Amino acid sequence: MQYETKKRSMLKAISWRTWATITTAVIVFIFTGEFALAVTVGLLEVFAKMGLYFFHERCWHRISYGKKQIPAFVLWFTGLPASGKKALADCVYQRLVDEKLKVERLDGLDVRPLFPETGFSPTEVNRHVKRAGHLCAMLEKNGVIVVASFVSPYRESRVFARGLATNFVEVYMKSTVAACEQRDDRGHYLKARNGEYQHFPGVDAVYDEPVNPEITIEVDAVSVEAAADQIVNYLRTHFLHNG
Amino acid sequence: MQYETKKRSMLKAISWRTWATITTAVIVFIFTGEFALAVTVGLLEVFAKMGLYFFHERCWHRISYGKKQIPAFVLWFTGLPASGKKALADCVYQRLVDEKLKVERLDGLDVRPLFPETGFSPTEVNRHVKRAGHLCAMLEKNGVIVVASFVSPYRESRVFARGLATNFVEVYMKSTVAACEQRDDRGHYLKARNGEYQHFPGVDAVYDEPVNPEITIEVDAVSVEAAADQIVNYLRTHFLHNG
Repeated sequence: MQYETKKRSMLKAISWRTWATITTAVIVFIFTGEFALAVTVGLLEVFAKMGLYFFHERCWHRISYGKKQIPAFVLWFTGLPASGKKALADCVYQRLVDEKLKVERLDGLDVRPLFPETGFSPTEVNRHVKRAGHLCAMLEKNGVIVVASFVSPYRESRVFARGLATNFVEVYMKSTVAACEQRDDRGHYLKARNGEYQHFPGVDAVYDEPVNPEITIEVDAVSVEAAADQIVNYLRTHFLHNG
Repeated sequence: MQYETKKRSMLKAISWRTWATITTAVIVFIFTGEFALAVTVGLLEVFAKMGLYFFHERCWHRISYGKKQIPAFVLWFTGLPASGKKALADCVYQRLVDEKLKVERLDGLDVRPLFPETGFSPTEVNRHVKRAGHLCAMLEKNGVIVVASFVSPYRESRVFARGLATNFVEVYMKSTVAACEQRDDRGHYLKARNGEYQHFPGVDAVYDEPVNPEITIEVDAVSVEAAADQIVNYLRTHFLHNG
């Protein structure tokens, strides 16, 4: 929970008084032409009003009217391995951070090492993705924007994650298996083809295409920057308009 | 992220001006004895300063100085089934909510139904508790206080949860198996004794007592209210002191 210190209220009182007293003195001088009177009224005002301003600030600190929360949302990137989810999600995350928004970043590559016992069978993957979805929803519920990127190949767990969230924005990284395989510089597809990996989406496991994703990125046709623009524009229209 | 609306700044300008202009007019009247002059200066001030105040508020809205965050923490209740975790955690949670703090409440009974495939073997329980610990830590990292209550019988997963959090407060609900069994009005111990439940802590599974819990509640010796006092006092000393 955020609160304002008494020091902040004090500083605001001083900064306000500087402006306000000059204004008063000028007004009094214009009306009376008496410089001494203008200065006397100004000086007295400094003491009388500085205290009053501080008190006024502390009262308003207890009033929540007009303090608004930007609605949080879950931005969920899904797509084949090596479809560019992480790079794009990182880019969008950075843009949101630059706007001083409260954002959490979750990526399969960061979460999985914490739970090394998690396997890659469809059952295990669905469990893992559902847990990640629950985590996203809890963060969102508490006002945190979440940028999540998981292969999340199975519709079942994506639908589950969507159901838990309030504002779920699914970003489908659309690409072909061939294009992803070519893009893959970590050799995962090769290992899957050689039988070193099992249940690899696009090779020996399905990737369920999203049915109605909020955003579809044509990975092989746009740059990361252009795709980030497309996503941030969507977010601006739907969530980030404040005033 | 929280922000202040222009309407809030406007209202503050009006409420401030009401107090301030009266002060100015009184000062001018005392010094000049001229009622008309006092009113004229006051009126002119209303227009000149209302706008200035609004502008001043909008500037300060961009300044983060003196806006402080209360440190978040994870308050983790552990203890045998029917040791009274839920009732006490609910009570402490309510007290924190009453203080207008940002708090999330997690209880085994609420989280498990979301993941019905989660079993009760030590392996499954450790996995479940570790995931819950990860969720707590992510919330805490984002400024949310977490009140969590899980039987969490195994030291391994509790130590894991502690390791992920920044401020981990372990509350050990200390009671005997016999006392818990007598307290159990949902018949869980009976089912465990009859072999309907397996891996039941205190019956056919161990409950690893916490080694150095931050707080120990002697469940059979104190009331829920007294125990809540004990916990809230600890939290006040360690986290909730602001100024």
